[in-house]
Amino acid sequence: MTGAQHQSLTGSGRIVISVDAMGGDKGPATVVAGISLSAKKNPDIGFILHGPKAELERLVAKRRNLAGRCEMRDADDVVKMADKPSHVMRHGQNTSMWSALDCVRAGEATVCVSCGNTGALMLLSMVRLKKLPGVNRPAIAVLWPSRNPQGFNVMLDVGADIRADAHDLLQYALMGSSYARNGLDLDRPRIGLLNVGTEEHKGRAELKAAHDLISANADKARFDFVGFVEGGDIPGDRCDVIVTDGFTGNIALKTGEGTASLIGDLLKEAFKYTPLSRFASILAYTSLQRLKKRIDPRRVNGGVFLGLNGTVVKSHGSADATGVSAAVKLAFQLAQSGFSEKLAARVAAATSQLEEMTNHKDGAA
Amino acid sequence: MTGAQHQSLTGSGRIVISVDAMGGDKGPATVVAGISLSAKKNPDIGFILHGPKAELERLVAKRRNLAGRCEMRDADDVVKMADKPSHVMRHGQNTSMWSALDCVRAGEATVCVSCGNTGALMLLSMVRLKKLPGVNRPAIAVLWPSRNPQGFNVMLDVGADIRADAHDLLQYALMGSSYARNGLDLDRPRIGLLNVGTEEHKGRAELKAAHDLISANADKARFDFVGFVEGGDIPGDRCDVIVTDGFTGNIALKTGEGTASLIGDLLKEAFKYTPLSRFASILAYTSLQRLKKRIDPRRVNGGVFLGLNGTVVKSHGSADATGVSAAVKLAFQLAQSGFSEKLAARVAAATSQLEEMTNHKDGAA
Repeated sequence: MTGAQHQSLTGSGRIVISVDAMGGDKGPATVVAGISLSAKKNPDIGFILHGPKAELERLVAKRRNLAGRCEMRDADDVVKMADKPSHVMRHGQNTSMWSALDCVRAGEATVCVSCGNTGALMLLSMVRLKKLPGVNRPAIAVLWPSRNPQGFNVMLDVGADIRADAHDLLQYALMGSSYARNGLDLDRPRIGLLNVGTEEHKGRAELKAAHDLISANADKARFDFVGFVEGGDIPGDRCDVIVTDGFTGNIALKTGEGTASLIGDLLKEAFKYTPLSRFASILAYTSLQRLKKRIDPRRVNGGVFLGLNGTVVKSHGSADATGVSAAVKLAFQLAQSGFSEKLAARVAAATSQLEEMTNHKDGAA
Repeated sequence: MTGAQHQSLTGSGRIVISVDAMGGDKGPATVVAGISLSAKKNPDIGFILHGPKAELERLVAKRRNLAGRCEMRDADDVVKMADKPSHVMRHGQNTSMWSALDCVRAGEATVCVSCGNTGALMLLSMVRLKKLPGVNRPAIAVLWPSRNPQGFNVMLDVGADIRADAHDLLQYALMGSSYARNGLDLDRPRIGLLNVGTEEHKGRAELKAAHDLISANADKARFDFVGFVEGGDIPGDRCDVIVTDGFTGNIALKTGEGTASLIGDLLKEAFKYTPLSRFASILAYTSLQRLKKRIDPRRVNGGVFLGLNGTVVKSHGSADATGVSAAVKLAFQLAQSGFSEKLAARVAAATSQLEEMTNHKDGAA
């Protein structure tokens, strides 16, 4: 029965996305509302939904447009935000998160989407999907509103990993350029390496080594390397992809989000100040909505885990239906472009090239 | 003659500020315009201005309100933005920056203000003013618009230094709380240590060690330690002072500035979109100006160098007259509160306490 349903999901040429319905701050009703939004907009998506089956069936039944496009997989346990990743790895077999990842592992779905605990999702993804051959450290990439024509830049890693050496940073550059090519339609992305100055003599030793490695790989991997960039270039137009370690990236991401949110609140306050300014804000409503849409974090909701056998999209824990739908849209776009396979090929090519270089050097020495 | 002029500057109980007129992107005319603004607002400031004397005399003569309140010191050379700090240290004796710092060294002025090359200013400050006893690594602190009642938080270090160990981070906490007490009038500042999560087991080893050290010193140094904070707390209200290493702080600062500037530009664009929205922006003018003033980086213009024998305020290289005046205001406030002396006493107390603890441990072992 399940198999038949699954066949019906894909039979019409649909791309199937595996969705963890649990673990987000707003519960499964919000996730179902989100995939319903996506289903309305895009007839080419099918869903496999993971969580307590009775509850999910009740929620899905309310959404007519999900009829025939959504299969449920029963999973009673939920990974909570406070759960330690190592605990989930040992005891999480019955969680919706585990089930959602295993669907990608089994090839039933191309991409997994979850609003759950980031650390647990990364560790489970590594255990269940395994790292791509040649990848030492998977990374989380996010989209960031920018001055570039495509409207967004890619930054990676933002995964709170405490270290990255020069080889890790090279792999981030390779994976980030693949992501920009397939997720933002940039034929030849420009890569920048985040540092405290743009001069080549500045910064930590591993950054100088990474500078040379990335530079040496730019041509073969079809990206342009602009060298060191600074924090101000993350929302700027000097490059399309910002490469950094997970510690620095995580702090930059949260600083940017916090600053944007403070300015948004101050803007609201400013317009409430006098009757005249309240009137002005009504007249300016469309303009302000346009701005809000442009920088709305929900529109770019979804960190993407790169470097695994399969793609995982991590949605914000606090995502509402619009946010979940944005994460599904990103998942669909990556699945449709064959991103996972292209990324794997890119990393494999760079790895064999590095090995050749090393062998050559050894031979010469 | 010079001595007599200087006496007249201080004779009336004025606080004397040493100002490097050169090295900013906009030249000495902007610096003179800035100190003239400050002189108008505050009758208790006197200036010693450093640069090519003939040029400065011409500029100062145009501003009547500077008559009798501004002395000039001739210095023909200028530190350029691209100059390497080590070059300036060896060959910079005749620069306006050197002369401005030596005025503080000689006790003629309490604080030095410069718009010049940050790296050179820090190195020259260390060489000419020397580090405070017990300080290993001076830091640059900035003010950041925040949700706190005082309107700003302090973050340090943002000086692009590539490493800070646990002891350095403790000293930043001590210096940052002194700065918040004297610069923001907070009796008992709340200190947060920047990390990628708020749980105590997270992050780099030196951060965990710093967590314990800062916690142990909180009571004696009269601050509250809130533990680890995240990037989103820099503009937030969980703490008043954010402590981090110079690499991370520099990237967070520039990311926040870049994000604010992008949003500002997008807001302008949004209001230009239709005739109606242009009309709305006229009605909303006062509200938008209020917002602009609240987050205007020129109003908080001035990184402060902490941990030296004397205070140095680094103004943005691109500061206009308003920016220079804001840096002078900050310099005045710190000088008036006796900040340098209080900071030195605070560091000395903590150093002797640490030594006692170490001796005690050695004795017990």
